[in-house]
Amino acid sequence: MEALPDMKNNIKNIAIIGLGLIGGSLAKALKEKNYYITGITRSEETIKLALNEKAIDKGFTVLDSASLNDVDLIVLAVPLLLIKQYIKKIAEIVKHEIILTDVGSTKSDICKIANDVLPANIIFIGGHPMAGTENAGFKSSTDNLFKDAAWVLTPFGKENNEALNKLKDLIKQIGAIPVTVSPEKHDLAVALISHIPLLISSALCSLVKDHQDKELNTLSLLLASSGFRDISRIAGGNPELSRDLITSNLNNIEKLIPLYTSTLNGLLTMGKSSSQDLIKILKETSDWRNDIYNPEGKNKNLLIKN
Amino acid sequence: MEALPDMKNNIKNIAIIGLGLIGGSLAKALKEKNYYITGITRSEETIKLALNEKAIDKGFTVLDSASLNDVDLIVLAVPLLLIKQYIKKIAEIVKHEIILTDVGSTKSDICKIANDVLPANIIFIGGHPMAGTENAGFKSSTDNLFKDAAWVLTPFGKENNEALNKLKDLIKQIGAIPVTVSPEKHDLAVALISHIPLLISSALCSLVKDHQDKELNTLSLLLASSGFRDISRIAGGNPELSRDLITSNLNNIEKLIPLYTSTLNGLLTMGKSSSQDLIKILKETSDWRNDIYNPEGKNKNLLIKN
Repeated sequence: MEALPDMKNNIKNIAIIGLGLIGGSLAKALKEKNYYITGITRSEETIKLALNEKAIDKGFTVLDSASLNDVDLIVLAVPLLLIKQYIKKIAEIVKHEIILTDVGSTKSDICKIANDVLPANIIFIGGHPMAGTENAGFKSSTDNLFKDAAWVLTPFGKENNEALNKLKDLIKQIGAIPVTVSPEKHDLAVALISHIPLLISSALCSLVKDHQDKELNTLSLLLASSGFRDISRIAGGNPELSRDLITSNLNNIEKLIPLYTSTLNGLLTMGKSSSQDLIKILKETSDWRNDIYNPEGKNKNLLIKN
Repeated sequence: MEALPDMKNNIKNIAIIGLGLIGGSLAKALKEKNYYITGITRSEETIKLALNEKAIDKGFTVLDSASLNDVDLIVLAVPLLLIKQYIKKIAEIVKHEIILTDVGSTKSDICKIANDVLPANIIFIGGHPMAGTENAGFKSSTDNLFKDAAWVLTPFGKENNEALNKLKDLIKQIGAIPVTVSPEKHDLAVALISHIPLLISSALCSLVKDHQDKELNTLSLLLASSGFRDISRIAGGNPELSRDLITSNLNNIEKLIPLYTSTLNGLLTMGKSSSQDLIKILKETSDWRNDIYNPEGKNKNLLIKN
C-alpha cells in the first residue's frame, strides 16, 4: 500500500473548475475568507467577470498541470455528467499531493470512478452542497448561497480523516453545515427528498398540460393558485439538470416510485372508506411538514448537531 | 312557474356568514367600496374585533330573519361541509327577494341542494374565490386577499343573468376576476389543479416521514432544501380543510389518480429507455410551467380575458 500524503499543511490555494452558480458562489464565499482562488472555465468572458468581481485571483480557460500548480484543493463544479471525465483528467495531470472534491448531486458512481482511477497522491472525497436557486450561471452566484445549507461529504475507499476534517472546516467557514454519509445512503436520501419530488412535480404539470379536455386545461390554468405555483416550481427547473439527476439515480428512483404510488392510492382509499383515518394521517403529515420548516421545531435541531 | 324576483335594485346591504380568512377579507374589501356589511358568526370576540377594525357595520351571533333584514346579498363563508345546512336554514327564514352565494371549494353538491331547497325569492349562484393563505381566521384577513385572483361563479338550475351580472360586478370591484363555469366543470378543474396537488404533496410527506429506514428519514430531513419546502407546502395546510376538499370531490379525484400515476410511471420508463425523450418532455413541462407564472407569458392573458 502506498503511503498516504502528508496533510499537515492547511489548505490555502484552491482551484475551482466550473464557475457557474455553485462554483462562482463558492469562489466568492472562499474569497471572503481570504483563500487564494484559481478559477478554471472554458469561457473567457466568465473569467474576466470573475476577476473583475474579485471572485478569483487568477483564471484559466484550459485545465492542465500548470493551472493547478501549488493548488492544495480542487473543487469540481462542472455539470454532473462531466465530473467523471474531469476526475480521469486530473488523475493524469496532477502529480503533487492534493485533495479533490466535487459538487455533483449523485455520488455512488462518481466515488467508484474516483476510487478506481485516482493515484495515491490525490485524496478524493465526494461532496454535494444542498443549495441552489432557480437561476444558473456565474451571474447568479452569491457569496452567501451556502449559508446554513447542508453540505454532504461522502468518504469512500481510501479514506483520510485529516483531509475530511480539512474539508469540514472549510465548509463551516463559509457558513454551511457538513454532513458525512456513505455515497449510497446519500443517493437514496436525495432520491427521496429531491428526485422523487422533481418527478412528481413534473408528472403533475404533464397531467394538467396534456389533459385531453382542452377547455378544462384552460380553466385549470385560470384557477391555479399559489398552491399550484409552489408544487410545480421544481418542474420549472433546468431540464438538462433534471434529466441528469434522474438518469444518474435511476436505481433508487425505481425503488421509491412504487412505494410512492402505493402511498398515494392509500390516501384515496382512506378518503373513500374512513374520513377519520384520512384526517388522522393528514394531520400527522401536516404537523411533521410544518415542524421541519419551523425554526423552533424539533427537526431543526438535526442540522445544528452536525 | 313562480315569477323571478325583481333584481333592478343594486346590491347595497351584504350579510357575510362566517368571518374567517375568506369572510373577514371579503368584509374588509367590500367596506373599502362603501357597502353596508352585516357580519354573522358564533364568536362574539370576532364580532367585536370586526366592528373595531370597521370590517363590518353590525354583527350578530345568531342567524335569524332579524339579522338578515334589508339584506340584498348573503355570502356563506362558513366551512365547506356546513354550507348545505346553512342553505336549508336560509331557505326557511328569508322571505324577501335576495341573492345568495357561497365560497365553498367544491360546487356540484352545494348547487344541487340549493336548486332543490331554495324558494323562488332566493337566487343562488355558487361561488369559489381562488385565494387563501397558510393562515386561517379573521386575524389573518386582509382587504386585498382577492386582488387579481380568479373568483368562480357556477350558475345552476334557476339561472338569473341579472343576479349573475351583479355578482360579477361586485367581484370586479374588489379586484378579483370573475370566471363563470358549470359546477361540474369547476369541480373537475379544482380536482386537477388543487386536490390532486394536495394529495401528491401529502403522499410525498408520508413517504419520507414513514420510510422504514429511520436513519434515512433523518438524513433526508437534513438534506431537504427549498424544493422540498415548496412541494410539501400544501401538505402543511389545515387537515380538516384538506379532508373536506378530498371527501367532497372524490368522484373526480378517483378518475384523475390513475391518470396521474400512469404519467409518473411514464416519466420513469422514459428515464430508463430514452434520455432524449425524457429531456424533451421535461423541457416542454418546464416551459409550460414557467409560462403560467410569467407576467409576460402567453397563459397570463387567460385571466385578463375574463
